[in-house]
Amino acid sequence: MIKRLSFALFYTLMVFEFLTGQSDAHAAETKKTDLIEHLEPAFWWVGMHHPELQILVHGDNLGLTRPQIQYPGISVKSVERTDNPNYLFINLSIAKNTEAGRFDIQFFAENRLLTSFQYQLKSRKANSAKREGFGSKDVIYLITPDRFANGDPNNDSITTLKEQQNRNKVGGRHGGDLQGILANLDYIEDMGFTQIWTMPIMLNDMPNYSYHGYSTTDYYQVDPRFGSNALYAELSQRAAKRGIGIIQDVILNHIGSEHWWMNDKPSQDWINNDGKFSPTSHRREALHDPHAVESDVTGFNDGWFVPTMPDLNQKNPLLANYLIQNSIWWIEYANLSGLRVDTYSYSDMAFLSDWTKRVMLEYPNLNIVGEEWSVNPAIVSFWQQGSERHSDYQSWLPSVMDFPTQANLIKALTGLETWSTGLLKLYETLTNDFLYGDPYNLVVFADNHDMSRIYSQLNENEALFKMAMTYILTTRGIPQVFYGTEVLMANRGTDDHGVIRSDFPGGWQGDKVNAFTRVGLTKSQLEIQTLFKTLLNWRKTSSAITEGKLKHYAPQNGVYVYFRYTQKQTVMVILNKNDKSMELSLGRFSEMLGNAKQGTDILRKTEVALTDKVKLESMSATILELR
Amino acid sequence: MIKRLSFALFYTLMVFEFLTGQSDAHAAETKKTDLIEHLEPAFWWVGMHHPELQILVHGDNLGLTRPQIQYPGISVKSVERTDNPNYLFINLSIAKNTEAGRFDIQFFAENRLLTSFQYQLKSRKANSAKREGFGSKDVIYLITPDRFANGDPNNDSITTLKEQQNRNKVGGRHGGDLQGILANLDYIEDMGFTQIWTMPIMLNDMPNYSYHGYSTTDYYQVDPRFGSNALYAELSQRAAKRGIGIIQDVILNHIGSEHWWMNDKPSQDWINNDGKFSPTSHRREALHDPHAVESDVTGFNDGWFVPTMPDLNQKNPLLANYLIQNSIWWIEYANLSGLRVDTYSYSDMAFLSDWTKRVMLEYPNLNIVGEEWSVNPAIVSFWQQGSERHSDYQSWLPSVMDFPTQANLIKALTGLETWSTGLLKLYETLTNDFLYGDPYNLVVFADNHDMSRIYSQLNENEALFKMAMTYILTTRGIPQVFYGTEVLMANRGTDDHGVIRSDFPGGWQGDKVNAFTRVGLTKSQLEIQTLFKTLLNWRKTSSAITEGKLKHYAPQNGVYVYFRYTQKQTVMVILNKNDKSMELSLGRFSEMLGNAKQGTDILRKTEVALTDKVKLESMSATILELR
Repeated sequence: MIKRLSFALFYTLMVFEFLTGQSDAHAAETKKTDLIEHLEPAFWWVGMHHPELQILVHGDNLGLTRPQIQYPGISVKSVERTDNPNYLFINLSIAKNTEAGRFDIQFFAENRLLTSFQYQLKSRKANSAKREGFGSKDVIYLITPDRFANGDPNNDSITTLKEQQNRNKVGGRHGGDLQGILANLDYIEDMGFTQIWTMPIMLNDMPNYSYHGYSTTDYYQVDPRFGSNALYAELSQRAAKRGIGIIQDVILNHIGSEHWWMNDKPSQDWINNDGKFSPTSHRREALHDPHAVESDVTGFNDGWFVPTMPDLNQKNPLLANYLIQNSIWWIEYANLSGLRVDTYSYSDMAFLSDWTKRVMLEYPNLNIVGEEWSVNPAIVSFWQQGSERHSDYQSWLPSVMDFPTQANLIKALTGLETWSTGLLKLYETLTNDFLYGDPYNLVVFADNHDMSRIYSQLNENEALFKMAMTYILTTRGIPQVFYGTEVLMANRGTDDHGVIRSDFPGGWQGDKVNAFTRVGLTKSQLEIQTLFKTLLNWRKTSSAITEGKLKHYAPQNGVYVYFRYTQKQTVMVILNKNDKSMELSLGRFSEMLGNAKQGTDILRKTEVALTDKVKLESMSATILELR
Repeated sequence: MIKRLSFALFYTLMVFEFLTGQSDAHAAETKKTDLIEHLEPAFWWVGMHHPELQILVHGDNLGLTRPQIQYPGISVKSVERTDNPNYLFINLSIAKNTEAGRFDIQFFAENRLLTSFQYQLKSRKANSAKREGFGSKDVIYLITPDRFANGDPNNDSITTLKEQQNRNKVGGRHGGDLQGILANLDYIEDMGFTQIWTMPIMLNDMPNYSYHGYSTTDYYQVDPRFGSNALYAELSQRAAKRGIGIIQDVILNHIGSEHWWMNDKPSQDWINNDGKFSPTSHRREALHDPHAVESDVTGFNDGWFVPTMPDLNQKNPLLANYLIQNSIWWIEYANLSGLRVDTYSYSDMAFLSDWTKRVMLEYPNLNIVGEEWSVNPAIVSFWQQGSERHSDYQSWLPSVMDFPTQANLIKALTGLETWSTGLLKLYETLTNDFLYGDPYNLVVFADNHDMSRIYSQLNENEALFKMAMTYILTTRGIPQVFYGTEVLMANRGTDDHGVIRSDFPGGWQGDKVNAFTRVGLTKSQLEIQTLFKTLLNWRKTSSAITEGKLKHYAPQNGVYVYFRYTQKQTVMVILNKNDKSMELSLGRFSEMLGNAKQGTDILRKTEVALTDKVKLESMSATILELR
């Protein structure tokens, strides 16, 4: 990959520079010179834990140049070149106590200055390294930015970009944006959400189906149809004032086929499978399988999702470093409270170890949640830090998405109550928690952006829906709610992702139904929205839920009972799947009830005596705060 | 539990002895004296690893006596008494190099000799400690002794026992016995089985439903309706001459309610739940569950199966030691090749750790397989030695029954072939092998005595049946075949255990169909019996199957391919679930095919060229020994 400069190329470059006259340094004040097509990251910070910085420089034959820097504390430790002469990777050492400031990076060909770039090292925000990530105290609101609210109609279509707004197209761009989220922070705060995870907001300059954001074409630029880097930072700042954190959706595995790298690959090995499409097997099991053939492992890791998503080869250390720095850059720049990592295990395993380690060393209290879409907890738990592991693999990933709970929640609620089905599935799921390094730091959810909405998965049964959401909001872990769930958004008769990610009512001018103002909502929608608001805001006050442990009782006769508790507070949750009201004898629960004599029914706002029995409505969820 | 002698009791005892004149020692040559109702174990061996022996003595007020022994190398280390004065536990130290021989155990009340018992220490068979247990070289034949063959019609009913023969009763005793197995060793050997696991053969003197053997009423006596201790030892000896081992079915968790202990419990805490029936929850998950309430753990461990099966409290160290010694006694006495432990996890965890450790220290190369009926490999694997564990629990159990494979075999064969169902289930099961300490030492089976027969589970589909048995006999692990499977025994329309365990055709005089002589078998039965014979006898010759590793390929298009291999031999197995014959391209399998040019089709006895493609029959299993 590393290539030595050839004299012939050097000569060519010099002639080119001479003819175009672009070698003067007057462009130093601009972000990029005419010669430099890309220089990333465009700035950095002093006072980081990691004492090095790698700068990617891209431009015609810039790989043939020699960079030079004069700044106290900064030295060019080494320069790396690839088999593409248009790339140069500059490794800077940043000494401890280096001061913030600006300096020129000068690019020489032999002894001639070709161009230079004014680089900035900024100061970090106070306590940046110590920021606390999202956790079990929080409820995450998952937003599809294109589909939540159109706060700025002026950016719906950008003529220089390939796809324009078209609200008639299910998979088209609908115009939602960061300004739409910003404008509705009141609603989000009022509902009780304390974290916002947006689907990816980086540039996705793809000709079609670009709204979802998972085809990155620039890792350092917010898509202008969503806003700007500055607006993203502003959203984060203004949300923080309301106690709301921002979680970025990070894609390490692949890019969009319109990424600028694809026009001029940094190296031949930058993209897996020689840069040609070959589908991933999706058989993640192969990574763990002692009986796996090599071709099943590479077939999973190196295969692509679709032809428009070139699969990144993170075994290339330059690319690995690029992705690591990019994540750190965004955390620092936009003051993020955490990351959600897309298609986690599809990336190279060793890289994931390095990536998590580097990010967590910079931000030891941050939270990062990886998406490992398996319903096998032995596989999901593998990736979480602290889990017992069948190999010496090192993971610094604090959290994983709890797909086993999601799948079993549906089975539990829609299945018959028998000895081995029904609510037992929820019980069984939690009994597997011995596999996880930290089950209390799993992200739990009833649905997400990649599957049918929970209301549809439960066949639009409102009673089951209430039980599902009560469970997700009171079990161990960090709940995540997909936008619109609070007003019963559904995808009846289809599982088209564009329908699942429909426009939030009230997000567009002229919407007849407005969930923000509650105008036009049905009685059911109003009731559910109120339920969410009640539950989320009560949840914040409950130490048992936000900090407590969980104990549960094996389900019996269609009733599942669990407790959350701290030394200060105990909460009892009862799911009754019987289609008759009934009385539940309390004797069995004495170990957890202790001396409690009374409970406050959080959803019904009544007081309940805890003597012999409690009355349960048919098909109901009950939350009792014990006293 | 340990109780001091009271003078009053002593006095009572002395008076009793005086009046009945039973205190003389003339009974020393008989096994038991009139005073001694039970003394167990009745004999032991010198040269064991463990230097101690605990002898249980039971008889009216014998707990009030003082035992005395005079024999070189033997000393009474201590005596333990319980809250029942009728029991005495004598702890002997057996010095290294103690010689085999006989000695009296004399029982004194104060200084008066009440009775004595002539005890024997036998010599061990050569290499007894080093015996090799069953393993992946073997195929286990699981026999229900009452239902396989009636070799001795004279013992069908024993008048002193509570249940008599009744072949008209599905759950009654049918008369099969050890002599029946002995008489048909030719057949078993000829078929190619190399291990016999009989359902329990200890005395089950229960009034009803005693044939299955899981309600032990005497741990040291073979049920006379099956034969005798001596006949059991003879069966083992004669089987060994044919290279066939005997595996004993051991029940540590419970006894039958007619066990003699129940008339006079050795201690108040001998039986769980104060000796009263309270059903087990069967929720084994609770043992592993970090969120379990205490009552769910004890509800599983201490609960009983049914009112006729009192649950043993192995937390009592005297009982624990009794069970440990009993297992060792039978291995030594009947020269066993291994144990199968019933309802493994229902016993106390700490006891299971001690029990496995003690047995394995005596016989380091023995095999023991535990029954943990869970389809969750994270739970099943917990019990196997060497597995990664979420706790510091120590297990010396070499093998567990592979229930996850059994369940997924059915799903794999009866399920539709989709992205996530069908043969994928078999593949997924093996990918979980990272959880096991030694996946090659799991016992694999298509069915057993506690579930519908495999032919019925596969809806009597012969093609699927052949695929199932080919899989079980060629995948990693130790195959187990339930008697009668080789002649398509089924339980159509019922899952009554008495039907599942029907009489083997030919085992009873006058049987019109005889699977031993092949008289009266249908064409299908003959074909399947021949298939088994072919496969089992070929299996013995294949180092790839009996010693080799396994590699497999994620199923594609309804075809699952795996390889077994050593450095010497490679075997390719292909399961084709498509209902059309097809050609399988071999390119994908190059990593495992290596330079092989040709293969012998073991089932069809043909030669197959391994060029581009191989032809596969519809719904078929193919075994190719590569060259």
